[in-house]
Amino acid sequence: MLPFARVTIIGLGLIGSSIARGVKKAMPGAVVTAYDADPSVRDTVHALGIADDVADSAGAAVVDADLVILCVPVGAMAAVAVEIAEDLPADAVVSDVGSSKASVFAALRGALPGATIVPGHPVAGTEHSGPESGFATLFQGRWCILTPEDGAESAPVIRLRAFWEALGAQVELMSPKHHDLVLAVTSHVPHLIAYSIVGTASDLEEVTRGEVIKYSAGGFRDFTRIAASDPTMWRDVFLNNREAVLEILQRLTEDVTMLQRAIRWGDGDTLFDLFTRTRAIRRGVIDQGQDDARPDFGRAHGE
Amino acid sequence: MLPFARVTIIGLGLIGSSIARGVKKAMPGAVVTAYDADPSVRDTVHALGIADDVADSAGAAVVDADLVILCVPVGAMAAVAVEIAEDLPADAVVSDVGSSKASVFAALRGALPGATIVPGHPVAGTEHSGPESGFATLFQGRWCILTPEDGAESAPVIRLRAFWEALGAQVELMSPKHHDLVLAVTSHVPHLIAYSIVGTASDLEEVTRGEVIKYSAGGFRDFTRIAASDPTMWRDVFLNNREAVLEILQRLTEDVTMLQRAIRWGDGDTLFDLFTRTRAIRRGVIDQGQDDARPDFGRAHGE
Repeated sequence: MLPFARVTIIGLGLIGSSIARGVKKAMPGAVVTAYDADPSVRDTVHALGIADDVADSAGAAVVDADLVILCVPVGAMAAVAVEIAEDLPADAVVSDVGSSKASVFAALRGALPGATIVPGHPVAGTEHSGPESGFATLFQGRWCILTPEDGAESAPVIRLRAFWEALGAQVELMSPKHHDLVLAVTSHVPHLIAYSIVGTASDLEEVTRGEVIKYSAGGFRDFTRIAASDPTMWRDVFLNNREAVLEILQRLTEDVTMLQRAIRWGDGDTLFDLFTRTRAIRRGVIDQGQDDARPDFGRAHGE
Repeated sequence: MLPFARVTIIGLGLIGSSIARGVKKAMPGAVVTAYDADPSVRDTVHALGIADDVADSAGAAVVDADLVILCVPVGAMAAVAVEIAEDLPADAVVSDVGSSKASVFAALRGALPGATIVPGHPVAGTEHSGPESGFATLFQGRWCILTPEDGAESAPVIRLRAFWEALGAQVELMSPKHHDLVLAVTSHVPHLIAYSIVGTASDLEEVTRGEVIKYSAGGFRDFTRIAASDPTMWRDVFLNNREAVLEILQRLTEDVTMLQRAIRWGDGDTLFDLFTRTRAIRRGVIDQGQDDARPDFGRAHGE
């Protein structure tokens, strides 16, 4: 029994195209319809053969759907919802993969007042973008957070849970507000800081860009990966999860200031204590299968 | 022709043990003598068979050496230099692998006034520590910075360059002061920020540690790797490269404040412009072979 027989994906970037591939692989028999506002993406999806059908409009894409997943930047959700409103079947479930949930739910509910909406967020990705970058196993072992309006495990939530589990993900329910705070910590502020460090390094007068790149293996290169993520997607995340991002950023700034002071005053114990504590978190990440256990993420070294 | 026939390595952690393995592989015929202040590390080195000889004291280790490489935390350099002063052959070259160069040179010169000292820093590593973690190819394609006192390509510098090139590294000469600024940007401040983000995340009341770990694939997990690096080594780096670290940290804080303001005021263009600019730096890192070109550092995804 398929959780959904007719799945429509709108927005075929890294996440949307990975869902399409995952459905083909894990839910044979399900029909995947794709639509992307960019005609060249539609052509690529057609050429890749990762959808059964590529529609010419968002409305045409959803007309037969029993699940519609919006995989566009969070700032574009409202417009897409307006585009599908007229053609959306009454019994279809509408979900999304956006990184901020309170803002997305408000946008979708505003445009689709009568629809069954279960916002979602698979916490997975790479720094690459576009339909060529997706792959079927992207969600294996990752968590997908669902933020249903009433917080309850209703029938559509149960079906959507089964859908994500079929793609290899584990599913957790959460309020949109709590989601937005948790993701500010585990994703949004880390991205902002990575972008910022890479920006600061490339703007220095005393150190050339060539030097920054050459000696990046000292740690900097890790930040450049995250800072290569899609600019539109991330701009929208920060504009749509403003409060939580600013709150966590404020906390981080206080903690950095404390470390700055410890360095200035030669307080090695404060540094050592923190550096010891943080190792335990890494062990937790590895133990719970949320990162590659191999040294250096499994990067190739020589040979 | 071997650049050095008798190599002594003091401190057999990740870097020291990688050098030992690298010499065995790339310079057969060279004799490697090892010494570590920790008897259990000496036992491990003996059991691993990565050195020809494991000495019982620092002095005994250097008595026949023509190259001595100190691979201890930068805060321990002065004490080790004192330990070897009496037994160091007059024609031996003394080098190190410390992450700060001005402080290390001062420490070595103070304890070894007549010695030939060529400080060095191979910009390579993983988050793992100890003699079991090293491997012969760690320096392949990475850069090793040498900071000779007069900045000149003298005979000992030429030999040390040949040594590092035999280990697979590329070599660059630099002043200690410039090294310390470059590394503050490309290594020290990124590490400090990573430690700090992981610390901040694990201290929040509103978000549990379990949640931070579960949803770490959103970006946070990248920071946990760096924040699992050796606490002693990194405490010493910050205490010994104070000025440059504080200077770069100040620059970063200004830039983060600017982004904070952009988020607060909804200035998407400022965010989008930065996020686009930083992608170019990532391309440079990949193009110049300083990171794995595969998505997500080549991490395993499912399967």
